[in-house]
Amino acid sequence: MSSVQKPSIPQGTRDFGPAVVARRNYIFGVIRRVFEKFGYAPLETPTLENLSVLTGKYGDEGDQLLFKVLNSGNFLKKQKGEVIKEEVTPADLLAGPRAVLPKIAEKGLRYDLTVPFARYVVMNRGTLVFPFKRYQIQPVWRADRPQRGRYREFYQCDADVVGTDSLLCEAEIVLMMSEALNTLGLTDHTIKLNHRRVLGAFYQALGGEGTEVDLFTAIDKLDKIGREGVEKELAERGFSAEAIDKLFALLGVAGSFEEKLERLLAAFVTAAVEPDTPGADGYKGLQDLHRVLDYLRGFGFDKWDNLEFDVTLARGLSYYTGCIFEIKINNVNMGSVSGGGRYDNLTGAFGLPGVSGVGFSFGVDRLYDCLEELNLFPEAVAATTRCLLANFDAESEAAALPVLRRLRAEGIATELYPESGKLGRQFKYADGKGIPYVLLQGSEERAAGQFKLKTLATGTEQTLTLEQVLAELVGG
Amino acid sequence: MSSVQKPSIPQGTRDFGPAVVARRNYIFGVIRRVFEKFGYAPLETPTLENLSVLTGKYGDEGDQLLFKVLNSGNFLKKQKGEVIKEEVTPADLLAGPRAVLPKIAEKGLRYDLTVPFARYVVMNRGTLVFPFKRYQIQPVWRADRPQRGRYREFYQCDADVVGTDSLLCEAEIVLMMSEALNTLGLTDHTIKLNHRRVLGAFYQALGGEGTEVDLFTAIDKLDKIGREGVEKELAERGFSAEAIDKLFALLGVAGSFEEKLERLLAAFVTAAVEPDTPGADGYKGLQDLHRVLDYLRGFGFDKWDNLEFDVTLARGLSYYTGCIFEIKINNVNMGSVSGGGRYDNLTGAFGLPGVSGVGFSFGVDRLYDCLEELNLFPEAVAATTRCLLANFDAESEAAALPVLRRLRAEGIATELYPESGKLGRQFKYADGKGIPYVLLQGSEERAAGQFKLKTLATGTEQTLTLEQVLAELVGG
Repeated sequence: MSSVQKPSIPQGTRDFGPAVVARRNYIFGVIRRVFEKFGYAPLETPTLENLSVLTGKYGDEGDQLLFKVLNSGNFLKKQKGEVIKEEVTPADLLAGPRAVLPKIAEKGLRYDLTVPFARYVVMNRGTLVFPFKRYQIQPVWRADRPQRGRYREFYQCDADVVGTDSLLCEAEIVLMMSEALNTLGLTDHTIKLNHRRVLGAFYQALGGEGTEVDLFTAIDKLDKIGREGVEKELAERGFSAEAIDKLFALLGVAGSFEEKLERLLAAFVTAAVEPDTPGADGYKGLQDLHRVLDYLRGFGFDKWDNLEFDVTLARGLSYYTGCIFEIKINNVNMGSVSGGGRYDNLTGAFGLPGVSGVGFSFGVDRLYDCLEELNLFPEAVAATTRCLLANFDAESEAAALPVLRRLRAEGIATELYPESGKLGRQFKYADGKGIPYVLLQGSEERAAGQFKLKTLATGTEQTLTLEQVLAELVGG
Repeated sequence: MSSVQKPSIPQGTRDFGPAVVARRNYIFGVIRRVFEKFGYAPLETPTLENLSVLTGKYGDEGDQLLFKVLNSGNFLKKQKGEVIKEEVTPADLLAGPRAVLPKIAEKGLRYDLTVPFARYVVMNRGTLVFPFKRYQIQPVWRADRPQRGRYREFYQCDADVVGTDSLLCEAEIVLMMSEALNTLGLTDHTIKLNHRRVLGAFYQALGGEGTEVDLFTAIDKLDKIGREGVEKELAERGFSAEAIDKLFALLGVAGSFEEKLERLLAAFVTAAVEPDTPGADGYKGLQDLHRVLDYLRGFGFDKWDNLEFDVTLARGLSYYTGCIFEIKINNVNMGSVSGGGRYDNLTGAFGLPGVSGVGFSFGVDRLYDCLEELNLFPEAVAATTRCLLANFDAESEAAALPVLRRLRAEGIATELYPESGKLGRQFKYADGKGIPYVLLQGSEERAAGQFKLKTLATGTEQTLTLEQVLAELVGG
C-alpha cells in the first residue's frame, strides 16, 4: 500500500452499483423462473477453462479474442512445490509467441456458455439423465475492442436441451421466449424462425453455383446492406444473375407463417416425391416448422402476431442444423436480444458424436437497455431499505433499537441511522439511497407512544402507533 | 473441431450441477435476504481488475497468488487496430519476467471483494451516499495449491459499511451473523469477538519486548499448537519468561463475556485515568466491546450463549484496527466460516485516507459443507421439475399439451417427456432428475376425463380430475 494511485477498471468492464444490480437481478429472476417452469435446471461451470477445451471452437477470430491466463507464479521461475512440466527457454522466447504461449498460459476465461456445456455433458455423460435440460446464467469474456454496447465482460443466459431431436423442444423454446418477454413487458417483439434446411434448399435451387457459406453470409447481411448490396456481393462471389433472381424470388415469399410454409412447400413439391432432388432438404425443414406450429397450437399459444417465418434468417450457419431462432424488440432500435437453434454435433469435438440438441441465449445487456428505454422496470425492483429510523440523540437511538428489531422481524428492510444528530444529513441519506420512508420519534412522540412516519416522495407526515406504522410499511 | 480430446477442467475449479447450484443458491438467498433486511445494498465489480489496483494489496504471498491475464491477442504481435503502448523486445525477454510481465499482462482476476470495494468507493466517492452499506456475493480466484476444501475459484459473501465509526454497525454485524446462521439451521455456533486494542494492550503489558506482529502471530496459533508451542515460539522471538507469564495470565481471563470485560477492565484500570500508559489502548477496546453489548441488549438480542469474548482471536492483524469477528460451527470439525473486523484505512492506498469501515465475510463453501454434514438443506431446495407428463403416443402427447399449459400457468414446473413410448425410460428420467410426480393419461383415463398421478417416493397412484391434480401439486 505504498504509492497512492488513481484507480480505474479495465476497458470494457463495468461496476454494477446497487440500483443496477437490482434491475439486472430482476431480469435474471424472470428468465430463471421461466426456465425452471419448463424443467430446465441450473448449471454453473468454472470461469477458467483449459485452453485445450476452448481453442479451435470459435474459429480463428474467436481464438484471438480468448482471454488467456498466465500459469500461476512467475512463468520463468519454478513455483515453490509446483511441478512445471516444461521450462520456457530463451530460445523459445526468441522464437516468438507460438513457442512461448502454450508454456506460460494453459487456461483461458469462459468465452461462451455452449462449449463449457458441451464439455460438461461429455465429462458427466455416465451420470446425467437424458434428455438433459440445463440453463446457465454466467458472465463470459471476450477480448473484443470495447465500444458502445459491447463489453469485454458480459452475461449470457442460455437454455439448452440435449439428447433428443423432438421438435417439442423447439416449440417450448418459442413458449419460453414469449413468456419471458411478455413478463418483462416487452410485448412488442418478433420471434423469428427459420430452418437451416430451408436455407440449404435455397442454395440447391440456385443450381450449384458458388458455395453455401458465401450464400448464407450474403443473405445474413440483407438487413444491413439491402437487396442491392447482397446482389452485388453474390455476383462478386460467382453467382449468376439468373441464380440471384431465383434466390430473391424464394426469399420474397410473402404472407403469414403458414402461407409462407404453403408457398415454399409448393416450390419444393417435387422434392417430396423424389428425395435427393433440389428441395428435398427444404421439404424436411418445412415439415419441421410445421410440426413446431402444431405443438404451439396444441399448447394454446396465442401470440401468433409475434411469430414470424423469416426465410432470410441465417445466424451462425456453420453451427446450426435445424430450426434457427432470433428475437427483435420492435419498438427499440437495437439488434437481436436473443438467438439460437438446433445443432447436431455439440459434443463431437470432445469425442461424443451424434448428440442432438437445441438451445438459445438471451442477451441480458440488451434486454436491460430495452427495459430502460421503454421505462419498463417495475418501481419495486430496487432492493433498497424501506424505512430509515431517524437518530436524534442517544436516548432516541436506544428507543429505536426495539423498533428496528420489530420492523425487521416483519421482514421490512430497515436501518437506524448509525450516528446521532443532524437530521438533514439523515434525510439526505434516505433520499440518496432511495429509501421511501423515514420514521421519527422525538421525546414528545415517545411520551405519547407514537411515531411520525414521513413519506419522502410526497412529503406527507402521519402520526401513527407502531402497529399502524407496520400496517403502512408492510402494505405498501 | 479437428482432433478429439478428453476434456477436463483446471485443477482447483469445479462444475456445479443442478442439485448443487440449487443448494448454493439457497445459502446465497438466506444471506442476501438478511443483508438486505439490514439495509445493505448489492454491488458487483468486474472479474478483471487492473494489476495496478491489485498488486501490493495482499502482501508478497498474495501477489504470487494473483491470476494474471495476458493482454488481448498475441503479445508479441500488434493486434489489428489496437495500440500497444510498449513492445516487448527480445532483450526484455532475455532480461526475464520482471521486464516482460508488465508489458504482457496488465489485468488480473479478482482476488478478494475488499480491494475492489475500496476501489469502487474511491472512484465513486462523489456520488455515493455515506455511510455506504454494500454486500457483494461473487467468486474470487487464487493461484493457491489446490487441496481438499481449498479451491482456486470460490465465492465470497461480504458485507461492509464505510463512512461511519458507529459501533451500532458492529452490533448489527453480530445480529446479521446470528440471523443468517440460525435461519440456515446452524444453531450450534460461536460468534467470537475481540478487539485489536485489547491485543495491543496485551503487548504493551509485556513491557515492550519483541514486536506486536510476532506476538499476535504466535497468539493466532494457540488453537493449533497449544500454549506450550506458543510459549516456545515467543521465547525464540525474544520474549522473556516473565512477559510470557504475564501474557498468559491475561489470555487466561475466564467467565462470561461481561465477566471477562470486567476482569480485563480491572487489569487495565490505571489506564482509564492516565492515558498513554500501558493499557490505555485496551481500555478503549473494552469500552467499544461494552458499547456493542449495549446495542445488542437494546435490540433484544437473545442468543448470548452463542457470543464469546475470545481474547486470543487475532486474525488479519495488520489490517484490523477495532473489533474483530470470527465464527465457528461447533458441531462440525471445520475452521471458521466467517470473519471480519473494523479497519480505518480501507481506501488509503487509492488516495482517500481516513475512511473507517467494518465488515465481514461468509465462506460459502464451508457453510455448504456444514449444512451437508448436518443434513440441514431443506428438501424443497432442489429447484427441479415438480411433475412429468408421460408421453405414450402421438395422441397422448397432443392431449398433454393443454395440461402442460395449465400446470405451468399455475406456476408448477412441469415437463412433457419429449418423446413417445417407453414408459420405463420416462420413469427413469423422472427418477434421475428427482421429479416427485408423474402424471399419466392413457386412452381410458382420457375418455373418463381423468388422470393417474403417481408419487414416485411412495409408489402410490391416485386417479384424479385435473382440478384435483392441481390441488395436489400446488399444495405439496
